[in-house]
Amino acid sequence: MKQPRYITDDDILKTISPAEAINVTKQAFIDYAKQKSKMPEKIYLDMAEFNGDFRAMPAYVERYNIAGIKWVNSHKDNPKQGLPSVMATLIVNNPKTGELIALLDATALTCLRTGSVGAIATKLLCKKKTPKITLIGCGKQAEFQIKCIQEIRTIESISCYDVVTDNAEVLAKKVAGYTNEVMISSSIKEACSLADIIITTTPAKAPCLSLYDIPQSCLIIAIGADAKGKQELNHDILKNATIIVDDIKQASHSGEINTAISEKKLSEHAIDATLGDMLVGNTHLTLKDHILVDSTGLAIQDLALAGYYLQK
Amino acid sequence: MKQPRYITDDDILKTISPAEAINVTKQAFIDYAKQKSKMPEKIYLDMAEFNGDFRAMPAYVERYNIAGIKWVNSHKDNPKQGLPSVMATLIVNNPKTGELIALLDATALTCLRTGSVGAIATKLLCKKKTPKITLIGCGKQAEFQIKCIQEIRTIESISCYDVVTDNAEVLAKKVAGYTNEVMISSSIKEACSLADIIITTTPAKAPCLSLYDIPQSCLIIAIGADAKGKQELNHDILKNATIIVDDIKQASHSGEINTAISEKKLSEHAIDATLGDMLVGNTHLTLKDHILVDSTGLAIQDLALAGYYLQK
Repeated sequence: MKQPRYITDDDILKTISPAEAINVTKQAFIDYAKQKSKMPEKIYLDMAEFNGDFRAMPAYVERYNIAGIKWVNSHKDNPKQGLPSVMATLIVNNPKTGELIALLDATALTCLRTGSVGAIATKLLCKKKTPKITLIGCGKQAEFQIKCIQEIRTIESISCYDVVTDNAEVLAKKVAGYTNEVMISSSIKEACSLADIIITTTPAKAPCLSLYDIPQSCLIIAIGADAKGKQELNHDILKNATIIVDDIKQASHSGEINTAISEKKLSEHAIDATLGDMLVGNTHLTLKDHILVDSTGLAIQDLALAGYYLQK
Repeated sequence: MKQPRYITDDDILKTISPAEAINVTKQAFIDYAKQKSKMPEKIYLDMAEFNGDFRAMPAYVERYNIAGIKWVNSHKDNPKQGLPSVMATLIVNNPKTGELIALLDATALTCLRTGSVGAIATKLLCKKKTPKITLIGCGKQAEFQIKCIQEIRTIESISCYDVVTDNAEVLAKKVAGYTNEVMISSSIKEACSLADIIITTTPAKAPCLSLYDIPQSCLIIAIGADAKGKQELNHDILKNATIIVDDIKQASHSGEINTAISEKKLSEHAIDATLGDMLVGNTHLTLKDHILVDSTGLAIQDLALAGYYLQK
């Protein structure tokens, strides 16, 4: 019995550019909106005793003729011991027979598709040609948001904030090549004061950003909340914002809006559109001053990127 | 980034004997009954368009300090093209950090743990020292039932029945070494007429065995039904049988009893015990003439076997 094909993060990063990842992720949204792919609900394996969890994300993508599952962890204390919080493995199968096609590290792939969602949201929802971007949370996800967004906009400036200042400093160096001005902020309010786009990628379980902290008009891309009970934004931000999600069900259960919905401060009807609907032109929105894009991460995107890699 | 450790089916079969698999599976039941392991509900990725599905089975096993997920398919038409219906891959992680420990073919492992459940059920519930065994459905699962049961009982005879007679003939040759008498039956009634133990491992979605087919007293080990809507036994068998399951929730949703429960012909209260309860001595049952063991397959067993392999 032979060993299956194994694809590493390095293979992925060498082969798929941010620009390509954006195109594949965009197409995955469109295919999903057209019901050309399937994505049952995630399940969680709770590891509260170790301040973490695992998530199982199955999917089927007709375009690449593959089915599979991403298995991804989230362990908040990992960075303290020099490990990433989030690591992932992807199994890819033939949907017609179930045969194993390949196994992939899916950590880099997760970063690419999450960054791509930020870029897609920016293209659809940010009118500024040269936006000022604020990063709340300065880990790997924040870095890939910049890597992808710079593919579609000239970035005027980047402001970095992290509760651990060292993280902000490390990220500031990494993203220095993508803009003329990188700042490290000592408070969230300072970091956000001039932002056109605010990107939150923290593991917060309590809001760290309120209406009082943000400019009168901005696009907020909320990445961090991806499990029940997680929340980065105070509910006062949600009340008068245009709300766009990647998936209505998944965002309602485990995205940024999940606590507001479970506390009945927001109804699912307050969701204005999905990114997929916007991409296929299924929406006619009048955008408010504050726009929230609630990104939870979709298995169809991970699998589509794997399919793209395998076909390349 | 280095390739992860990959363990093949051959590695598993060379390293874990049926006797060892029975011990590990038994211990997994006991640990689960003592809440020393975790197992969220399976999720299914439906592939009805290809007459199949995939299942995601996450678990945590404290004894071996591992978490992980089994991803397993079930494609009914595979044997027509010379492929097994069921193939599986297992991802094993460090539960404290989420780091990947190993990847395993889990097809052989699935056969071993399923066979082990048959052996455990036989040890607990079959009084006959030299039972006559009937196999309804003659694929890989049936073979491993015999491989495992022969570890704990001298098998008097084996009667094989399959809708495809060729399958019964192939299996009859494979199990010939485990008993003095192997028969191929031309009907289910004939196959079951003298059985002490009847083992069903078919992919049936409609009952193929009724009260009329079985002896006045027997142990039925029902393996095939492992998804909503699947069923091998007519409900008339369930009515007056002692019902033992591997897991109450999983069996009620997707085991042999799932259709009877969803049609309100049986209540969850009709379940007399779990195999785990019996193993830890938590039950005082008066057994009826017909005993049904409803085996759905537990992720904790797969993971425990992987843990045993990795520790060995």
